[in-house]
Amino acid sequence: MSTAATDTRAKLIESARDLFMIQGYHSTGISQILKRAEVNSGSLYYFFPTKEDLLLAVLEWYRDHIEDDLLAIHTAHVSDPVEKIFALLDGYRQMLHMFEFEMGCPIGNLALEVTNTHPAVRSLLLVNFEQWVDSVEGFLNEAADRFPEDLDRRALAVHILATMEGGVMLARTYRSLRVFDNAVNQLRDYIERLLIIGSTWSAPKSATKIEESI
Amino acid sequence: MSTAATDTRAKLIESARDLFMIQGYHSTGISQILKRAEVNSGSLYYFFPTKEDLLLAVLEWYRDHIEDDLLAIHTAHVSDPVEKIFALLDGYRQMLHMFEFEMGCPIGNLALEVTNTHPAVRSLLLVNFEQWVDSVEGFLNEAADRFPEDLDRRALAVHILATMEGGVMLARTYRSLRVFDNAVNQLRDYIERLLIIGSTWSAPKSATKIEESI
Repeated sequence: MSTAATDTRAKLIESARDLFMIQGYHSTGISQILKRAEVNSGSLYYFFPTKEDLLLAVLEWYRDHIEDDLLAIHTAHVSDPVEKIFALLDGYRQMLHMFEFEMGCPIGNLALEVTNTHPAVRSLLLVNFEQWVDSVEGFLNEAADRFPEDLDRRALAVHILATMEGGVMLARTYRSLRVFDNAVNQLRDYIERLLIIGSTWSAPKSATKIEESI
Repeated sequence: MSTAATDTRAKLIESARDLFMIQGYHSTGISQILKRAEVNSGSLYYFFPTKEDLLLAVLEWYRDHIEDDLLAIHTAHVSDPVEKIFALLDGYRQMLHMFEFEMGCPIGNLALEVTNTHPAVRSLLLVNFEQWVDSVEGFLNEAADRFPEDLDRRALAVHILATMEGGVMLARTYRSLRVFDNAVNQLRDYIERLLIIGSTWSAPKSATKIEESI
């Protein structure tokens, strides 16, 4: 593919991605995508014969960027693996705030909108969710010795994803961070309670307590 | 309004409600609603000049039925207020299973789909979410003496709603109850950990312990 063709294809994917995120898949018209991308309809149909083909390309874009770009932006500067999880959740909070609740989790939005009507895209939605869960489970694994031994860390990572998706959905409806904060604060309380049990085995906590009691 | 007119209006709302739940708001055509309701287009436009008017009527229907009908079905037969919460969550699990993941939480679906594009319906979505949170908070209040005194029961009720909505979203994408169960099981683990702390103040637990040590 020529550089110009690659650019055109990338511009179409980027424009569709942004419009799907802001307006949803069904509400976005082909003409809006063309206008935003500054591309003519011939080029669109050359690369993407149907709107669903464009949706698949958008989901592939997320799949290829979620770990190294989207998740790392929020977590790379944090060293504690448990705090990486809350830094990631804070990334969604910032997005809600910055775009005044006009944007949520792009994958979550598309998941609810197209799960039934487009079974072909379901597997790509699933790949994106799995990558998210893999990353969070990885952070939990890094901190495994601070959690109870019988903790199902995969299940906890799924619970964290569910909390985020539900929290984002509520925040967008309420147009308020309060409900998102409620959901995440209770998650933090849960994880801290898990860590308290896990941390009876950790030296630093006991050391501090001893210092305090002196 | 005559009985016939009331029936026609009710049939239109019921048909729109079911189609919005299965297919989403944007994917549902007016002609589909007419066919399902067995009503002609003149009657539709008489009662509901726009599709958005019909959406508002559907949300009003949920508002009027959520507490006494939809929530009570799953919780009325359970006496323990904490178990009422899990019976309610199990109701969503049953729906996912029974309809093979074709149906989720109707309010959650509409919330993600129409929050930005139809600001007028947002307040009705919010009323429905608030009623749900009120009910769950009510159950938590009934069990208040079994929880830590400083527990924000309202925030926990919001967290439970977020977990349910996120869990339903994931189950529909994965077409699997495993992810829903993961989310709800971790929630149960959290609530049990809260109850353990709460129950250090409760007589029966200590009594059992003393009996065991004898």
